[in-house]
Amino acid sequence: MKTVDEYLDSLRRLDLKVWMFGERVANHVDHPVIRPSVNAVARTYELASDERYAGLMTACSSLNGEKVNRFTHLHQGLDDLVQKVKMQRLLGQKTAACFQRCVGLDALNALDSVTCEMDQKLGTGYHARFRDYVRHVQENDLVVNGAMTDPKGDRGLRPHQQRDPDLYLRVVSRKADGIVVRGAKAHQTGALNSHEVCVMPTMTMSEADRDWAVSFAVPADTPGIVYVYGRQSGDTRKLEQSPMDVGNALYGGHEALVIFEDVFVPWERVFMCGEWEFSGLLVERFAAYHRQSYGGCKVGVGDVLIGAAAQTADYNGTARASAVREKLVEMVHLNETLYACGIACSSQGHPTASGTWMVDLLLANVCKQNVTRFPYEIARLAEDIAGGLMVTMPSEKDFRHPEIGPYIEKYLQGAGVAPTEHRLRMLRLIENLTLGCAAVGYRTESLHGAGSPQAQRVVIARQADLEAKKKLARVIAGIEAEE
Amino acid sequence: MKTVDEYLDSLRRLDLKVWMFGERVANHVDHPVIRPSVNAVARTYELASDERYAGLMTACSSLNGEKVNRFTHLHQGLDDLVQKVKMQRLLGQKTAACFQRCVGLDALNALDSVTCEMDQKLGTGYHARFRDYVRHVQENDLVVNGAMTDPKGDRGLRPHQQRDPDLYLRVVSRKADGIVVRGAKAHQTGALNSHEVCVMPTMTMSEADRDWAVSFAVPADTPGIVYVYGRQSGDTRKLEQSPMDVGNALYGGHEALVIFEDVFVPWERVFMCGEWEFSGLLVERFAAYHRQSYGGCKVGVGDVLIGAAAQTADYNGTARASAVREKLVEMVHLNETLYACGIACSSQGHPTASGTWMVDLLLANVCKQNVTRFPYEIARLAEDIAGGLMVTMPSEKDFRHPEIGPYIEKYLQGAGVAPTEHRLRMLRLIENLTLGCAAVGYRTESLHGAGSPQAQRVVIARQADLEAKKKLARVIAGIEAEE
Amino acid sequence: MKTVDEYLDSLRRLDLKVWMFGERVANHVDHPVIRPSVNAVARTYELASDERYAGLMTACSSLNGEKVNRFTHLHQGLDDLVQKVKMQRLLGQKTAACFQRCVGLDALNALDSVTCEMDQKLGTGYHARFRDYVRHVQENDLVVNGAMTDPKGDRGLRPHQQRDPDLYLRVVSRKADGIVVRGAKAHQTGALNSHEVCVMPTMTMSEADRDWAVSFAVPADTPGIVYVYGRQSGDTRKLEQSPMDVGNALYGGHEALVIFEDVFVPWERVFMCGEWEFSGLLVERFAAYHRQSYGGCKVGVGDVLIGAAAQTADYNGTARASAVREKLVEMVHLNETLYACGIACSSQGHPTASGTWMVDLLLANVCKQNVTRFPYEIARLAEDIAGGLMVTMPSEKDFRHPEIGPYIEKYLQGAGVAPTEHRLRMLRLIENLTLGCAAVGYRTESLHGAGSPQAQRVVIARQADLEAKKKLARVIAGIEAEE
Amino acid sequence: MKTVDEYLDSLRRLDLKVWMFGERVANHVDHPVIRPSVNAVARTYELASDERYAGLMTACSSLNGEKVNRFTHLHQGLDDLVQKVKMQRLLGQKTAACFQRCVGLDALNALDSVTCEMDQKLGTGYHARFRDYVRHVQENDLVVNGAMTDPKGDRGLRPHQQRDPDLYLRVVSRKADGIVVRGAKAHQTGALNSHEVCVMPTMTMSEADRDWAVSFAVPADTPGIVYVYGRQSGDTRKLEQSPMDVGNALYGGHEALVIFEDVFVPWERVFMCGEWEFSGLLVERFAAYHRQSYGGCKVGVGDVLIGAAAQTADYNGTARASAVREKLVEMVHLNETLYACGIACSSQGHPTASGTWMVDLLLANVCKQNVTRFPYEIARLAEDIAGGLMVTMPSEKDFRHPEIGPYIEKYLQGAGVAPTEHRLRMLRLIENLTLGCAAVGYRTESLHGAGSPQAQRVVIARQADLEAKKKLARVIAGIEAEE
Repeated sequence: MKTVDEYLDSLRRLDLKVWMFGERVANHVDHPVIRPSVNAVARTYELASDERYAGLMTACSSLNGEKVNRFTHLHQGLDDLVQKVKMQRLLGQKTAACFQRCVGLDALNALDSVTCEMDQKLGTGYHARFRDYVRHVQENDLVVNGAMTDPKGDRGLRPHQQRDPDLYLRVVSRKADGIVVRGAKAHQTGALNSHEVCVMPTMTMSEADRDWAVSFAVPADTPGIVYVYGRQSGDTRKLEQSPMDVGNALYGGHEALVIFEDVFVPWERVFMCGEWEFSGLLVERFAAYHRQSYGGCKVGVGDVLIGAAAQTADYNGTARASAVREKLVEMVHLNETLYACGIACSSQGHPTASGTWMVDLLLANVCKQNVTRFPYEIARLAEDIAGGLMVTMPSEKDFRHPEIGPYIEKYLQGAGVAPTEHRLRMLRLIENLTLGCAAVGYRTESLHGAGSPQAQRVVIARQADLEAKKKLARVIAGIEAEE
Repeated sequence: MKTVDEYLDSLRRLDLKVWMFGERVANHVDHPVIRPSVNAVARTYELASDERYAGLMTACSSLNGEKVNRFTHLHQGLDDLVQKVKMQRLLGQKTAACFQRCVGLDALNALDSVTCEMDQKLGTGYHARFRDYVRHVQENDLVVNGAMTDPKGDRGLRPHQQRDPDLYLRVVSRKADGIVVRGAKAHQTGALNSHEVCVMPTMTMSEADRDWAVSFAVPADTPGIVYVYGRQSGDTRKLEQSPMDVGNALYGGHEALVIFEDVFVPWERVFMCGEWEFSGLLVERFAAYHRQSYGGCKVGVGDVLIGAAAQTADYNGTARASAVREKLVEMVHLNETLYACGIACSSQGHPTASGTWMVDLLLANVCKQNVTRFPYEIARLAEDIAGGLMVTMPSEKDFRHPEIGPYIEKYLQGAGVAPTEHRLRMLRLIENLTLGCAAVGYRTESLHGAGSPQAQRVVIARQADLEAKKKLARVIAGIEAEE
Repeated sequence: MKTVDEYLDSLRRLDLKVWMFGERVANHVDHPVIRPSVNAVARTYELASDERYAGLMTACSSLNGEKVNRFTHLHQGLDDLVQKVKMQRLLGQKTAACFQRCVGLDALNALDSVTCEMDQKLGTGYHARFRDYVRHVQENDLVVNGAMTDPKGDRGLRPHQQRDPDLYLRVVSRKADGIVVRGAKAHQTGALNSHEVCVMPTMTMSEADRDWAVSFAVPADTPGIVYVYGRQSGDTRKLEQSPMDVGNALYGGHEALVIFEDVFVPWERVFMCGEWEFSGLLVERFAAYHRQSYGGCKVGVGDVLIGAAAQTADYNGTARASAVREKLVEMVHLNETLYACGIACSSQGHPTASGTWMVDLLLANVCKQNVTRFPYEIARLAEDIAGGLMVTMPSEKDFRHPEIGPYIEKYLQGAGVAPTEHRLRMLRLIENLTLGCAAVGYRTESLHGAGSPQAQRVVIARQADLEAKKKLARVIAGIEAEE
Repeated sequence: MKTVDEYLDSLRRLDLKVWMFGERVANHVDHPVIRPSVNAVARTYELASDERYAGLMTACSSLNGEKVNRFTHLHQGLDDLVQKVKMQRLLGQKTAACFQRCVGLDALNALDSVTCEMDQKLGTGYHARFRDYVRHVQENDLVVNGAMTDPKGDRGLRPHQQRDPDLYLRVVSRKADGIVVRGAKAHQTGALNSHEVCVMPTMTMSEADRDWAVSFAVPADTPGIVYVYGRQSGDTRKLEQSPMDVGNALYGGHEALVIFEDVFVPWERVFMCGEWEFSGLLVERFAAYHRQSYGGCKVGVGDVLIGAAAQTADYNGTARASAVREKLVEMVHLNETLYACGIACSSQGHPTASGTWMVDLLLANVCKQNVTRFPYEIARLAEDIAGGLMVTMPSEKDFRHPEIGPYIEKYLQGAGVAPTEHRLRMLRLIENLTLGCAAVGYRTESLHGAGSPQAQRVVIARQADLEAKKKLARVIAGIEAEE
């Protein structure tokens, strides 16, 4: 396993083509806008080497018997599934941000079972080469960007119907040694901190969409790949050298548009190429793992937000007000409901043909559906407890200024002995999580990450087994006999 | 284990003093108002002898190694905790009612660990005699009424402050061979179907409330015990010989006020007598188990209600309307969220000193808190899908009448080939669950059973560890260093 | 205007064919199951002659300049629209039930403008004869049952597509002196207390449904009309002579299935006959008035339920608990939000071609949409404050029994000096409103009366003017110039 | 009335001491961060001179009979109260931001009746001098910053108990010609665009807080007043010359901390000085007017957000999906419910002793309570419809760059013929309203402006008249006779 320094060095050695604010970014790893995001991923390395968290952060590889970072592990049982959620909650607590490494983990696990079942059904040979790839990832302790979401153009049309066929990433040519692909993947969380990008189709493909049913992995700096940084609310505060105003000065997340301009992929890294019948299964499995993930990571971030609200109530002198206490209880209740869903879908998992364990599909989707709702209410309650000062307080530069600073110090002091600065820092953290950079992760990603709300509802409808429930009702109503 | 007939015979042999509608009820087991409730309990016996459900419904006793009904079992691990919830969901599905046997199960498990820890701390000798009692229950496959809730009089006063000391059940005298108790237990679910009543204190007692800190078990027909049936909405429809109008003709639940008029309890059945310091722990443990239970039983009833709504949509010809489909998805989503909480608090349990396993306290309370909300919304959605006919349709007697019946047959027909009667039956089932007898179980019991909403919030507040969360926030905000 | 006695006498003189519980009911006005419903309507007469309420309960007729009961009045301005809502809130407070006379009021007002506009457009002569009818209603102070909802059979089919054409009420023959109609109207609130029945089509008819586009009025005892009482949860408690158990011993509501078996209607009482193009407008207008109504009547019932919850908190000794106080505030907040919607749609009304005033269509639908939600939450909160005793307490017959009664008196006493009986009475009132007869009015009718939730959403969608809103957004986004 | 240019000139002539980002801002009116906020206020001048809006935007002064901007008008009847709400909705639609002039309007109206009643009760002479001030405001068409909220320090302590007495603004000395005040007002919306600041106490003062019971008005550039700009999420995007990225390039709002460092106020501008008994009434009246306001302005902003979501659905090709349509209906429903509350509390107003009309207190608080909830849900639904691209799309500088721009143009195109730029602009507008500068106005201000949620609940509790409601319930329950 890599140390944090090794991770940073390995990232710096990659030659990524990154665009931000209309410019090519040379050393993106150390760019102040991106660095907090690198730091968040770095904690997945740091905690893995911390004895206190070793049980959670590492696992024994099913492929080589070595200790590996759990973020590269294929789940071997219920315990692995549950530990994954707990690891994610821990990292959410430690970073108060999206730490970006789950999507690769979920991609690896989904591809593992699907390539195996595809081979069994179609006689293809993807599984062995995919396992080689997982070995490579584990042995080099790599960060993999699991890339699923295409830009999609007109949502009412299928890939082959789009006026520009590249609106879904596709195979443009097949060669002896590999394939050439073109297209883009949008909303790529953590793309700039990853060693590898592992592409999957974004939805169930029909036969006519055969060329869009493609999955593969390549190094992140493969020629033809271009990254465009996605703006976040308040992103440029990181450039101001006002760490207070940033709210969370150390950690963050980012999203990027990743463009594939005729990228060559050697066959040994191709995991699906035209097998459209398995595209739906791959999406369903990946989505289920990733919907499980949100029952861990967002809960950890929620812990920080709840803590920030409770701490602010102390600073405001309102901690004993019954209305404030009730709101904190409600935040905890909602947050733990998400956790319960994350744990439940893990503990009810089952093995797949490849030996890798899968979460409970229905409960994982129920988990994510709640994640599309509760963080918004938790955020609203945090803003309620925080008070209006969160969005009306002066900048750190004013606070530090010898002339105007003392007035701010005087007038924005709170209850008790804590310095005004602590109160302001805590409010900026809440702002960061509800309106700033981290709101992108805590709110929007909770809504759309791993599939928008309606995507979960489609799976819930399919998994609900309404026919069996109708039968139960008919028996009780005296219409049919019980069997 | 008893067969259903043996269960019924054993109940008939008990000489209970039961009052209902202003009269002493002679053969209460066969009284048409009570019988559906007996039938619901009977299914816990029937399914235990059904091979298809043996794994769920039975367990290997930790006390004698015999196969016992799981409703009498002391949980020996996480699997037992999870299986309990699944058993409860199954029975909810099979009865669409409260099947009343959980409260005894939860009382036995709570008392097991608390008597053990009390003995360890105080040097008392309750645990061995309690284990004898559990053996008795297991060997005779008994139904135990776990009796916790006192009438409480003025909620703002403690037991010893009430103007009538009997408003909380208490020890009135201690004798060589036992104790004499007086008081009452209210809202006793399934009291009339139980062989035994096992009493526990209703809340944390202070030293001044020492005489009220009492726990014991006696046969249900012990002299001095009187039962008064609690009325339910629509209870007397069961007397009309109109099974359609009842909605659920076979199954139901009931509650009773149980009065203890100077009842003698021999020492070998006394499990707490004055140890007020342990009253709170006993309440907490019992409540936690019982709050877990609701993540199973109410989910099973919810399955039937969802099925009834979906079936009614078929009868109404609205099943394909997107608004109806979305409502069904929402019902399933809410119901499965409850299940996720039931599963999660079980899978995160831990062993206690006695070897019996305990659920996760925080998650069990989160589970029940959701149960105080979601069944109400599920019921509202069911009523929405059902349509107004649910509360405006004529009686079965009108439907069967040769003169007016044909008009009802003609005008209340629905879509498709199902006879009008099926549609009416299904609507009566929904009425039963949302407004009728079963609404007492599905709505009010979901709200108040195992503790009213505020009771869970108190535990959630205590278990939230806000200090740790504040610390997380201070670290992220740059106020404190990480440890 | 009639006195209460005159109203009762006039009802008794009607020869209605009423079926209930499989029997023809001879003197239905004095039948204990129906009488509370008659009493509720009677209050609309009583309060009209009470000086304290004269301004609210009466109006000056636009037709003859006489003082008339407001329930027969054609709205002549914004003030009339607002007063209507306040009158309805008052009656809800005085009866805690549906007082059943609004539907006729709303039918008269809707038909007034539609017959006028229909005549203007099509050259028909309905308006003058309709005005004659309104004069008749006003001068005789009649209760009119506004009958709109057909049984509908398969909801996915139009009237002329149903396998039985009578599933929507229709004209079966046209004669020189009138028409003959056949069919039924379901969910007819207050049908048994009405002097007249005024029929309207239930939805927008297409040209092929021409024979189903029919509106007329006839006396309630016109030959061929048959009434079948709709069962309510707990209806037969009214037969037990246990007024406590009824909860609301004096008032109630009822619904009936009204069958029209080849009923003859003279032309002077026909207000639409084949003009399918105006069926949609009539439904829209009637529905809007009736959706406004719910912003008054249900608020009044809500006031009683809030009062009952607050009073129970006093009896329970929990009135000062902050959680209880917050719940009461929430109940008030939700209830007043409904009232605000009722007032707003009234105060934003406008005149129609006939001079009768119409409510704001969008806001009236918004009003009713909220009514499909908030009473359910208010009821849940009431049940929360009430506690479980509401559904577990013994019958009045037990309470009155010399042997068991004293135990109930002793053990179910609450805080303070109020007798136990008061506490039990108040809990039975809450049961009545949340699970019993009145729940049909407060819950189900709130959901489905004046159209089920989706019906309002269709109107809201149509009235939302999304195109104008998109334009606003495009201007702000810099895509288009402002006009 | 002033033209827009006259307004801008008059602002530029003020010599405000403004701090922002650690610097004194020289020409703050033209500073790119503040200018959008000035523009929003300017529209209150522009629309007043637009014939299409004259009825809404202007009124006939009750003081001098001249036509005045409605933002300076004392309400003379129900129509004025209703027109105010409609004017606010219009301006919300035209600016998609807080236009900042309501707080002064509400302060003037509240002070008008309170100074009148104070004079009547205490024999003071404030009302005449206050009316002079209103005349000054009307004749010069001034923007008044109504300044109420003090920093408050420890919320658990009263003003005189704070360790620093200046944490609530107070009188530090009384002189022959006036008073000297010290303290600060926080969260001052629109402070930098105002000609005047009108100070009021922030809460009910006790006798010991007499020196803090002070109200007055002074020109915004009075010596001793210092302004510190409050940072907003994404504020510095306005400095980037990337209008697309700003989302709403023309309009915005701002908040400031306003410090009063021993400011002299002549007696003719003092409206309360020590009359602590009237502090509570002033707060209640101001708050009620301001809570009414939110039923107008936030509804107008909501219209833009709904329009933006609907337009985005068109661009995304999802407008016909039933789930999307239902979400738009829900947004409209919630938004119109807020409007209904704004209209209702206006239409139920009443005259005060001074002749100025007051809104209905209970309904105004109900209005604001809903505003603390629904905009958050509307925002969540907008984010849902928008999709993740809202927070992952590249900067305008990337979009405009000749090398990377074409890729963005290609891959982020949507459905139909609209250029990619339109789609991106619309998404940036949604970002602005949900996460950016305007979210401060649309979310946080909705929560805390005019009082945090708990403040409304206190008034609702006081206005609920629970005793009358209990009485209603006792009558229905048969406990008491009706009066």
